Amino acid sequence: MFVSFEGCEGVGKSTQLKLLKDYLEATGQHAVYVREPGSTEISEQIRKVILNPQNTAMTDMTEALLYAASRAQLVREVIKPALERGELVVCDRYVDSSIAYQGYARGLGADTIKQINAPAMDGCLPDVTIFLDLRPSQSWRTFKIQDDRMELESSAFHDKVYEGYISEIETSNGRFVRIKPDFDRNVTSQRIIDALRERGAIK
Amino acid sequence: MFVSFEGCEGVGKSTQLKLLKDYLEATGQHAVYVREPGSTEISEQIRKVILNPQNTAMTDMTEALLYAASRAQLVREVIKPALERGELVVCDRYVDSSIAYQGYARGLGADTIKQINAPAMDGCLPDVTIFLDLRPSQSWRTFKIQDDRMELESSAFHDKVYEGYISEIETSNGRFVRIKPDFDRNVTSQRIIDALRERGAIK
Repeated sequence: MFVSFEGCEGVGKSTQLKLLKDYLEATGQHAVYVREPGSTEISEQIRKVILNPQNTAMTDMTEALLYAASRAQLVREVIKPALERGELVVCDRYVDSSIAYQGYARGLGADTIKQINAPAMDGCLPDVTIFLDLRPSQSWRTFKIQDDRMELESSAFHDKVYEGYISEIETSNGRFVRIKPDFDRNVTSQRIIDALRERGAIK
Repeated sequence: MFVSFEGCEGVGKSTQLKLLKDYLEATGQHAVYVREPGSTEISEQIRKVILNPQNTAMTDMTEALLYAASRAQLVREVIKPALERGELVVCDRYVDSSIAYQGYARGLGADTIKQINAPAMDGCLPDVTIFLDLRPSQSWRTFKIQDDRMELESSAFHDKVYEGYISEIETSNGRFVRIKPDFDRNVTSQRIIDALRERGAIK
């Protein structure tokens, strides 16, 4: 089974991934954990180009294609082989991030992002995608101290990311699970575990 | 006008680009010279990832998407602005290399390469593409001393590249000019100059 985690900045995705990993380890369930962009030597080199703070001239399309290149490598080097061995794969962000961030928020269009990612993914879509369903404005209020680098104009961008996710979820085939983060992270974690157990992704 | 140069390894492409540049400079014709992958700071970073000899694990699709990413940056940062200023752009390899090398020789398929490159190029196709029309087996005979690193299995690969070019040329809208390289490089250069003048790309 292939599980991906999605959500806007500051919604507690990393914390929830950590809590899921704790649960799986405590119950003796093996999984392969990856993050995007990165998780292979070549994907990490691509990540460095994407995130290099000096690359201010990078165009949106270059960025989208670099994410797709990093994904192509991760799919073929790690995700597909693990799935073929029957292992559980847990991925921190996947194609839906590209659709929400580059497709909707940067305005390249969801269809264009799908067009370049279809060959990159080679049919490898998540069985379950956990979407931590919190509007950026709400999460910013909660996580203000951590996110004070966020500038005012980023607010509109991150709102577009959220709207992009919602559009995708509404037109998807049902692989998304919308989880409302609770103030208590353990409550949120239990909701995720329950959803994944219900779908047969974990025990 | 946008002119690209294509051809297999060892057919004298660099030499011919140099001779065209000499002619244009001698006749006072300005041009913007670029090469792929590279020619912008970000594209050069991507080039390093593609050509890094330690990246033996790189998948064909990753490679194809990195070429497209490098192209997306070059188109938007250099080629389109130059064309909009009315300048002549001369590019050493462009999308046809991706189609011939990754699409045909690596077997990803020409359609897949076009699918990921259409958004990368944003409609920016060459007006004229000079194809130095020499089978690799012929150029190897001529340039054997320079190319002795070529292994036996590379021969089939480079033949596929050539066949890929020919297939594309035969189904194209006529932007290709097939130039048979002569043993005398100046004769070849004159053929290229004549073809570009005939098509109004240069004076």
